Amino acid sequence: MKIAILLYDKFTALDAVGPYEILSRLPGAELCFVGLEKGPVRSDTGRLAITADASLDETPSAELLLIPGGPGDEAACAEQRILDWVQRIHEGSKWTASVCTGALILAAAGILDGVQATTHWARYARLEELGAKAKAERVVRQGKIITAAGVSAGIDMALELAAAECGEDVAKMLQLGIEYDPHPPFDCGSPDKAPAALAEMVRASMRANRA
Amino acid sequence: MKIAILLYDKFTALDAVGPYEILSRLPGAELCFVGLEKGPVRSDTGRLAITADASLDETPSAELLLIPGGPGDEAACAEQRILDWVQRIHEGSKWTASVCTGALILAAAGILDGVQATTHWARYARLEELGAKAKAERVVRQGKIITAAGVSAGIDMALELAAAECGEDVAKMLQLGIEYDPHPPFDCGSPDKAPAALAEMVRASMRANRA
Repeated sequence: MKIAILLYDKFTALDAVGPYEILSRLPGAELCFVGLEKGPVRSDTGRLAITADASLDETPSAELLLIPGGPGDEAACAEQRILDWVQRIHEGSKWTASVCTGALILAAAGILDGVQATTHWARYARLEELGAKAKAERVVRQGKIITAAGVSAGIDMALELAAAECGEDVAKMLQLGIEYDPHPPFDCGSPDKAPAALAEMVRASMRANRA
Repeated sequence: MKIAILLYDKFTALDAVGPYEILSRLPGAELCFVGLEKGPVRSDTGRLAITADASLDETPSAELLLIPGGPGDEAACAEQRILDWVQRIHEGSKWTASVCTGALILAAAGILDGVQATTHWARYARLEELGAKAKAERVVRQGKIITAAGVSAGIDMALELAAAECGEDVAKMLQLGIEYDPHPPFDCGSPDKAPAALAEMVRASMRANRA
């Protein structure tokens, strides 16, 4: 299965690398990181760069398209070459997936009109503005479109995709391989579990990063 | 805080990027990916490259050293320049950390002699051979040395480090920011929860990847 993961300036690295760690190990997978141009693409912190091994123009199709989120999402939504490419790949894809605010890019490309989808909890309103029906769930699947909540949710989504595509045994083996038996030290990973003040600090930090 | 994450040929990307996503956002953090030489370093699948923004020689010290694992661990353990660098950085570090089989590299550098540590569940015996006291726990801390189990455990470890270094509120805010409220689709992320046949398949796959 040909898998394309989009990279763009100021993406969030774990959005891409969490699913990559699962999907690249599916039997028969040919995964490629794709950017506007070939070469290193910097993440939102400026401290990490992943190489785009192909340009958009070199990637005419993919069976699985995955769009990560990040504070560069709005700039990506304003880049017509990205929107055109996302539309084109989606037309022929078997699966179209996003993590975190990658859903906003799918929506800006017109793919989520009236579609149930999720994104980072702080960005539901923006997802609705762009025409999707935002759902506060960790992973939302409607037809071939599958969207994950914020950042780390991409790992859960990728395991669901692995099971749907290759069966539960493959997914379970991959989960065991990455020893994904999570034990977060705190129980505050979603806004309904965290103090309101913390959630407001995260919102403010995300606004500052987008500015 | 100056943070150095080592990259080497055939590292496992999520081992590095999980902790990076937390640690790079600590107040005052200056995180750098470090390789034998500057430039892109390929992960174990061959499908991803992260840029080393500094060489070992350009990195004389760090307050937090983090070593990821991966099937390239044995080759890294045989590279004297890496072992010398790890020893040197560890001498002056505030924290020395590993994820997955990154612990084997710490052990090969002589840092884990008689020290309680963990690694990927399939590699406890190798960790013991190299002089450490292997513990089947998700995160093990002894003094300034903190080691995490396989791959995804680095996220849990980084949140513990965040709390130890900057307080629980900062750690909780970062956890909420990456929406780390994990919902794995299966409960088979550790060998005591998974069928023995699956565990043997993972072991075989890891042996093949190292060969």
